Amino acid sequence: MIIISELISFLGPKGTFSHEAATLLGEDLIPYCTIPAVMESIVNDQCIKGIVPIENSIEGPVGITLDSLAHKYDLNIIGEVIIPINQNLIVNPGCKLEDIDDVYSHSQAIAQCQEFIRSNNIQPHYAVSTARAAKSIIGDNSKAAIGNAKSAELYGLEILEANIQDVDNNETRFVVLSKGNTDPTGNDKTSIIFSIYEDRPGSLYHILGIFEKNKINMTKIESRPSKQGLGKYLFFIDFYGHCEDEIIKDILKEIEDNTYFFKVLGSYPEF
Amino acid sequence: MIIISELISFLGPKGTFSHEAATLLGEDLIPYCTIPAVMESIVNDQCIKGIVPIENSIEGPVGITLDSLAHKYDLNIIGEVIIPINQNLIVNPGCKLEDIDDVYSHSQAIAQCQEFIRSNNIQPHYAVSTARAAKSIIGDNSKAAIGNAKSAELYGLEILEANIQDVDNNETRFVVLSKGNTDPTGNDKTSIIFSIYEDRPGSLYHILGIFEKNKINMTKIESRPSKQGLGKYLFFIDFYGHCEDEIIKDILKEIEDNTYFFKVLGSYPEF
Repeated sequence: MIIISELISFLGPKGTFSHEAATLLGEDLIPYCTIPAVMESIVNDQCIKGIVPIENSIEGPVGITLDSLAHKYDLNIIGEVIIPINQNLIVNPGCKLEDIDDVYSHSQAIAQCQEFIRSNNIQPHYAVSTARAAKSIIGDNSKAAIGNAKSAELYGLEILEANIQDVDNNETRFVVLSKGNTDPTGNDKTSIIFSIYEDRPGSLYHILGIFEKNKINMTKIESRPSKQGLGKYLFFIDFYGHCEDEIIKDILKEIEDNTYFFKVLGSYPEF
Repeated sequence: MIIISELISFLGPKGTFSHEAATLLGEDLIPYCTIPAVMESIVNDQCIKGIVPIENSIEGPVGITLDSLAHKYDLNIIGEVIIPINQNLIVNPGCKLEDIDDVYSHSQAIAQCQEFIRSNNIQPHYAVSTARAAKSIIGDNSKAAIGNAKSAELYGLEILEANIQDVDNNETRFVVLSKGNTDPTGNDKTSIIFSIYEDRPGSLYHILGIFEKNKINMTKIESRPSKQGLGKYLFFIDFYGHCEDEIIKDILKEIEDNTYFFKVLGSYPEF
């Protein structure tokens, strides 16, 4: 009998939005410091599953997640989690907005709060994570961090202004990864990746036509560079249905026959 | 007579890949510290044109450039420049690989060199630019930066290892922006943005069909979040032809009639 750990890996450190998403999956959570390390923990059986961010409604795809799933790790998406992202200006207790010269956060959080940063004349600096940013400002009243409420709490800091992101509708979608598969539930989505033949104009049009003629709705289409040169893309498509449904099996077969790279990332219940 | 400055703005500081691209346009170059600031310098007539990165063949689109062109500034793309990106490990003179604990660079450069960083067990840190990273390591032998040859030269540093990027085919495409337009040259590309109606499945398929039936080849298709919520996208498409060509005029009209947001970013000679 092979014993597989029941641990769940997530993108650490503690106190990040990824941590918040991971708490929805269970209690035995282990932080890893990069997205590929989360994936490796599953491949190596250190964890039975893991959760990583895949896209944000404002900033777009998380490139390293898509690239790692496409090129490096054979893992299945077995679930998705969507959480709202509210960014806060985090400061040392008692600190005021006019004291702040510099603000630290993850590059995506900085990008999400550009109007706030610009209108308050604060110099942005990148940190590896929102939690690391919060930790780095402890004791210095000229510095602030941007992050979630959990990271302020974790380091004894205060929220000076809440919801400082430029626009609402800010959500991050996470995917749950595992070596296993999920059974159809009747309310599933399937994620695939493919590359089209570059020398056949209209290839993408024909692939989308396969969904159109079968009346299957896509919920996502993202392009990513294939790393083969400018103008060459991988396409990530999510659509309704489970890869064990007969109609979806036929669609997947037809797409595979008309692409030079094709991979099913998994079928999973819609969040 | 209105006098408009002949200055050209670029994403500074000096010593970056953007600086390298800008030198192909002229000599009166002014660095600005953000991509929106480059665009504003043109809107405000401080500069007659400017150059900003728009996509990298490995990392994909430069989100802030696409978002700013889509939502914020009415500027035309009047040209494109493509330069190869070779990343180097930059150190203080005489420093050896085994001395290095930490490495600093722009997040895209860090992403481009992940295998090198991981296999040498170096801790990555984000900096605002490759040039700022180079400046930050001066005098500390435990630190290295990743960047181009120009940034090493600028700060009296040395290249310890050249071409440390994970994959070749690494190129960045820059666009030249202005308030003006360009005349057709016979070898032009046109860039557009549009959003499809979310409640009409197959909308993207039908838009791509317009290019297909007119036998116009696309050179790029990128999706970006529309910032209206997950699953809602803006599409950036580049294709052959000039917006003053009769066939292209008809295509643009048909796309405009079938999208709820549509913008021509410009027509310009292929690089």
